[in-house]
Order: sequence, then structure tokens, then C-alpha cells
Amino acid sequence: MKTWLDIDKDSDFSIYNIPFGIFSHGDSGLRLGTRVGDHVVDLHALAAAGLFDKLGIGKEVFSNSSLNNFIALGKSKTNGVRTAIQAALQDESSDLKNLTTAFIKASDVQMHMPVEVKDYTDFYSSIDHATNVGMMFRDKDNALLPNWKHLPVGYHGRASSIIPSGTNIHRPKGQMKPTDSDPVYGPCRLLDFELEMAFVVGKQTKIGQSISTADAMDHIFGMVLFNDWSARDIQKWEYIPLGPFLAKSFASSISPWVVTMEALEFAKVQGQKQEPAVLPYLQYEGPHNFDIKLDVGLTSQDGQETIICGSNFKYMYWNMSQQLAHHTSNGCNVNIGDMMASGTISGPEAGMFGCMLELSWAGSKTIQLKGGEERKFIADYDTITMYGHAEKDGKRVGFGEVRTQVLPAL
Amino acid sequence: MKTWLDIDKDSDFSIYNIPFGIFSHGDSGLRLGTRVGDHVVDLHALAAAGLFDKLGIGKEVFSNSSLNNFIALGKSKTNGVRTAIQAALQDESSDLKNLTTAFIKASDVQMHMPVEVKDYTDFYSSIDHATNVGMMFRDKDNALLPNWKHLPVGYHGRASSIIPSGTNIHRPKGQMKPTDSDPVYGPCRLLDFELEMAFVVGKQTKIGQSISTADAMDHIFGMVLFNDWSARDIQKWEYIPLGPFLAKSFASSISPWVVTMEALEFAKVQGQKQEPAVLPYLQYEGPHNFDIKLDVGLTSQDGQETIICGSNFKYMYWNMSQQLAHHTSNGCNVNIGDMMASGTISGPEAGMFGCMLELSWAGSKTIQLKGGEERKFIADYDTITMYGHAEKDGKRVGFGEVRTQVLPAL
Repeated sequence: MKTWLDIDKDSDFSIYNIPFGIFSHGDSGLRLGTRVGDHVVDLHALAAAGLFDKLGIGKEVFSNSSLNNFIALGKSKTNGVRTAIQAALQDESSDLKNLTTAFIKASDVQMHMPVEVKDYTDFYSSIDHATNVGMMFRDKDNALLPNWKHLPVGYHGRASSIIPSGTNIHRPKGQMKPTDSDPVYGPCRLLDFELEMAFVVGKQTKIGQSISTADAMDHIFGMVLFNDWSARDIQKWEYIPLGPFLAKSFASSISPWVVTMEALEFAKVQGQKQEPAVLPYLQYEGPHNFDIKLDVGLTSQDGQETIICGSNFKYMYWNMSQQLAHHTSNGCNVNIGDMMASGTISGPEAGMFGCMLELSWAGSKTIQLKGGEERKFIADYDTITMYGHAEKDGKRVGFGEVRTQVLPAL
Repeated sequence: MKTWLDIDKDSDFSIYNIPFGIFSHGDSGLRLGTRVGDHVVDLHALAAAGLFDKLGIGKEVFSNSSLNNFIALGKSKTNGVRTAIQAALQDESSDLKNLTTAFIKASDVQMHMPVEVKDYTDFYSSIDHATNVGMMFRDKDNALLPNWKHLPVGYHGRASSIIPSGTNIHRPKGQMKPTDSDPVYGPCRLLDFELEMAFVVGKQTKIGQSISTADAMDHIFGMVLFNDWSARDIQKWEYIPLGPFLAKSFASSISPWVVTMEALEFAKVQGQKQEPAVLPYLQYEGPHNFDIKLDVGLTSQDGQETIICGSNFKYMYWNMSQQLAHHTSNGCNVNIGDMMASGTISGPEAGMFGCMLELSWAGSKTIQLKGGEERKFIADYDTITMYGHAEKDGKRVGFGEVRTQVLPAL
């Protein structure tokens, strides 16, 4: 696809992408937008200009505080909007060329939460991550727990504290148990990021209804980068027997542009063989994994960024279709805007580990930063930025970034 | 308080109560109502008649699909509505006496979810329940895990599948692991109820903000009965290491009337002494427990109800103020409509155990039903009904019931 718009060839936001998000510009209020190259495109303005008239979509849905109502239109409409924009951007005689107020410099807009997240679920689906954690805290020969290869282990997370890229966080406080003393309450000492991706549910189901692996992709609207902030010392003390709670619920950061599954279709790859074979409701056909390169940068207070992890979403043992099939296998209903995260995405080699816990091997190693500093966990004023994109045959579709600075405890 | 309305002296819905809920009647649409004796009172009609004019509350907020906007008015307004209703019900010359269309027979209305639940958290705060479970699955001398007396253990639950009383459920399906075979997928065999109460958050906080135990009650709007349905066999296989997930997320049932903290004030009692002493952020002054009698009835297909459990909310080791203080101790934000459940409420004696798991001691005992049947767990077509009320000095304030029938797996 060739476009009359100037787009850098390395941009995550090529004409093949056309993601959706919520932005504000000046006192415009919240609106739906897409991003192309360095520009945010005001979809409300495009709708007002009649671009989506053929789809029967008025401008109202594009003036909204979340994508939820837009997603509810269904994939034929939402992808219709996407392809209409692609067509206009290729058409040298398009009226859009004169609609200059609809194209706003990305650096001039404020991005917001793209969806209203109803329920948030976090999985634990990377075999390398689960194995590493198991080796650290149990033993090498029994690293994976008995259920791990039979079902995509997951748990409910806190929806209220999911925040968009650019929102800084304070180091959380909490109750921890030092090895040789009574529990204490204070600022977390072992603050960590977790490199994850999350998908956004695009179709509502009713209680009692299950989604098959074959249908799952129809129920997924798109994806974001997801940083599942974790306080390892709070987690260690609180999580038995009911799982992580306050160690996670202080914040989770996401990238602001939801990249649609249609845009990611070209990045599909086959996942690894699952042995032992999974139960029929978890079996699937064809490629359900995605080749999405992921990087994590740590920028210390000196302003220098060190890439501390390079992983890939293709390493997931359990894919999103299996996660959604499992999640609804008991009849649990899902809503538009529900977010389901992958769990830490580690790869098979050391540079591919998706959290400080693994990178520092539970604090036994140091991570060298460019400016000469060292880290085992996250220090105050560190900024963690996650990047992700798929690339193939000259097409590049990416997520931009999710960036968060850690400020001292309040 | 004496009223011109005919209210049975054993009614949970005395003039001292005045709970809030969402009802529909014929094709009225969803409205806010209260309940007095056997009548549901249409608050939209009361507002239209000018009863809340002095409070500056128009009728719009009473025509709504949830209480959330009403709760957002704040306690001085919401309790103002409550006391205005109490005053009118005592006033022999009240115009309400002629407003007969506002009083609808309770049996003629349909009750709905009272609040839009944003996030749902479940605690594990009954020491008798936690001890019993620990004795069953670990050993007698180490029944309580090391963290249990230091913090109110909790976990995030699924908000989407919380349903109001009267909504039947189907036995969930799921993945289980029989002792001597590979995992299987099928209808749960060990279906259980959990007798709980839940509170509804009444004030929004921002990320980073903590709520003290002293302020907590100002942040709690009211309470409901809560049946945390549990599939014990699914739970046993899935829950390590990240906690209960699909074993719980298929449904949780609540009573439809939210009883306000103001109505429950008279039921406050001192909780048991906490040894060892808790950290300062969990310490509290004065009574924060509530003397609320709780009963669970099992009605089998023959129509006979057997009361299988009689417990009391006063037995909670961790109170709601501590739960909310702990939940926000890491800066986790809460929203109006968030629901936080107590965990199974067992008492110190055998007849007070709040779930079949304890009543049947993990299936080693049978529970005798009136009609001659026996149970270890819940059978298809069984109906579980939970009742709760506080009573003192001639005042009775209750919750009515949460009733759910279990239908066979789909």
C-alpha cells in the first residue's frame, strides 16, 4: 500500500496498522483516534466528513471516553473503518488531504485509557518464565507444577489500577516479611516489571456460554503491550494460598493504541508442540501464535536507556485462543473491554527474560546499565519502556510503547 | 419508630432498615426502590412527589440501572433519603399515604443487580474457616499459614458473574484431576456454596491513596449477603500457585437489597482480640464487627428446606475496616460499586460451618436432610438460600435472602 502521507518506513504505525485509541487535544474532550506515522488522526472529524457513511456509522461513536461502544459495533464495522482509512490514505484524490485539522502531531496529543476494562485476568503462559521461576523457588527437576502443561494457569487481577503509558507510578508500600524478623510495612524493596501483552475482548458472552478455540479469534478485538508491575517482597509474603493480590494491584501499565487482530493477521505463526496432548477443549488448529518482537528498556536517572530484554510473543506455550477457551470453559461470561494478559513473556535464552526477577536470577546477579550503574530490581526514578512490533515482507505493524517512570514511595 | 404502614414485626425490612435496590415492575424499566415489610417502594415516585426536594435531589437519579450514581451523592444525601422515608412513614398526615402506586407488593416486582460491580475482591477472614481448611488439607498443629494472622488474606474475583438472588445457575464444567488418572473435563462433582457477606464501596479513591481503618466506614456504603459458589474439584487442581480462578468465576449470588451501614450501626460489636498484635496500619479502635445472624437452608427437589448452617458475621477475625485499609495499603484505587466479600463465615462450632467442604469435613461425613436424603456436596436441583439479620432491643434489620437453584450442567 502506498500513501500520500509521509510515514517513516520504520514506523510502528504504518498504513497496514491503523490501531484505535482515545486521545484529547487541547480542550477537544475525549475522542477516538488512529495513528499513522507521527500523526494522530481524529476519527470524529473523519466521520463528520462522511468517510464512514457507507458503513452506516455516524460520528457520535467517535466522541467517547473509551473504545467500548465502537468495539461493540462488531468486527465487520470496526475493520470497515480501518480499511476505509487505508483506502483514503492511498487515494491521491481523497478529500482527507484537505482535512488538515484531522491530522494532529502525535507529540501534541494526550493519550488516555483506550478501553473501559471491566474485568482483568492475568495468565502465566510462558513456559520459559514458569520454568525459571520454578527453578528459582523449587527445584530444577520439578520446575513446572503438575497442572502447568494441562491448563493455562491464570488468576483475576485488579482492573481499576490499569493505567495508560506516560502515567508515572509511585513505589508501592506494603506488608513484607524479612527473613529474620516480624512482618513490616513500608516501601517495597524488590520492585519489578513484567513484560506482557494483553488482548481486549470484543464480544460479550452470557453466563453459561463457552468460547471454542476455533471461535476465540472472533471474540478478540485487539492487543496492547502490558507491564504488570510487581512487588516481589509483598508477593512472597501474601500469595499463599490465594495468589498475588497487593503485590500487583497498585498499577499495571498499557500502551495506548489497541492494534487489531486484523492488522496482526500477517504475524501469525505456529506455536510449539504441546506435550502431553491437551484436553479436546484446549486443542486448536492452525497458527494461533504471533511473531511480535518485544524489547524492554530501562532508563536510569542519567537519561541513558539500556535494552535489558529482547523477547518475542511467539514463545508463548499457551496461545490467546486457548486462554479464552479455558477462561470460559466453566461458563464464565466475558464483556467487551475485558483485558486478558499473557503473563511474563520470557524466551529460551538469558537475554530474553521478561522481568528483573529472572534477569537478576532472584537477585543473585546484577544487570549492567550503560551509564555504569547496576540493577537487581527497579530503582526510584527508573523508567521502564516496552516496545513491540511485527515485521514481515516489508510490512511493519507495531504498538509504539508503554513507558512508566517509578517515583519514590508516597 | 411507629409507622402507619402494616409491617410484620419479624420482617427484615422494618422501618429501621430502609435498604436500597434496583427493581422493575411490569414495563416500568429499572428504578431505585426501598423495601418496607412486604412492599417495595418506588423511590422515583417518591422523588416525583417532592419527598427529597429539601435534599436537593431530583427524580432522575432514581431511574437508573444501578445504585452507583445514587451512592455517588455521598452518605449525607443517601442517608438523608433514608431518614426522609422513615419520617414520612411515621407521619400520620404524610402525603405518601395517598401515593398508593408507589407501594408495590414485593412478590410483584423483579429485583436486579443493585450495583454495577467494578472490581470484586474476596477475603478469607474467618479464623474458624481458615483453621478448618488448614486442618483438612495440612496438619492440625499448623492449620493457619504463617501470614494469616498478620494480614487479611484476599484475592481478586470475577465481577462479571455476580448475579442477583433468584437467578439460577447451571452446574459448572471444568478441568479436574482425579487421583488416579489424567485430567478430565466435565461437570464439577464437588459443588459447594460459601456463606459470605460483602460490602459495597461508597467512595472513589485515586491511585496512591490509602484508607485508614478509622476512615474505612465512611468509604463503605452498605452490605449484602454473598454466596461464593465454589467447585472444589476444579479449585484443587487449578489453584496452585496463583489462587482460585475458574472454580469460582462461574457465578456468585447476592441478595438484592443493599443494607446501609447507618442501618447496621446498632449491630456493632467488638471483635476478638488479635494476637499477635497487628501492624499499625491494621490497628483499629472501637467496635468494627457486626452481630448479624446468618443461616443457610438447603432445599432439595422434594421441596423441603433443611437449615444446614447457623453462623454469625461477628465471628470474623478481620473486620471490614481492616480489609479496606489493607486493600488500599499499596495505593490500589477503589471505585463506587466495588464489592468486597468476607470469605466463608464459619463459627467455632460444627453447626456454624459456612460451606459443605467443612460441614462434610471434605466429604468424610454426610449431612442429613429433612426428607431423608443425605448430602456431602450440592446436588442438581438443590436450592441454597442464605438469610441474615441483626436484632437488638426490638429493632430488626435484615437482608432478606439470596436464593439460587442449581440446575444440571449445560
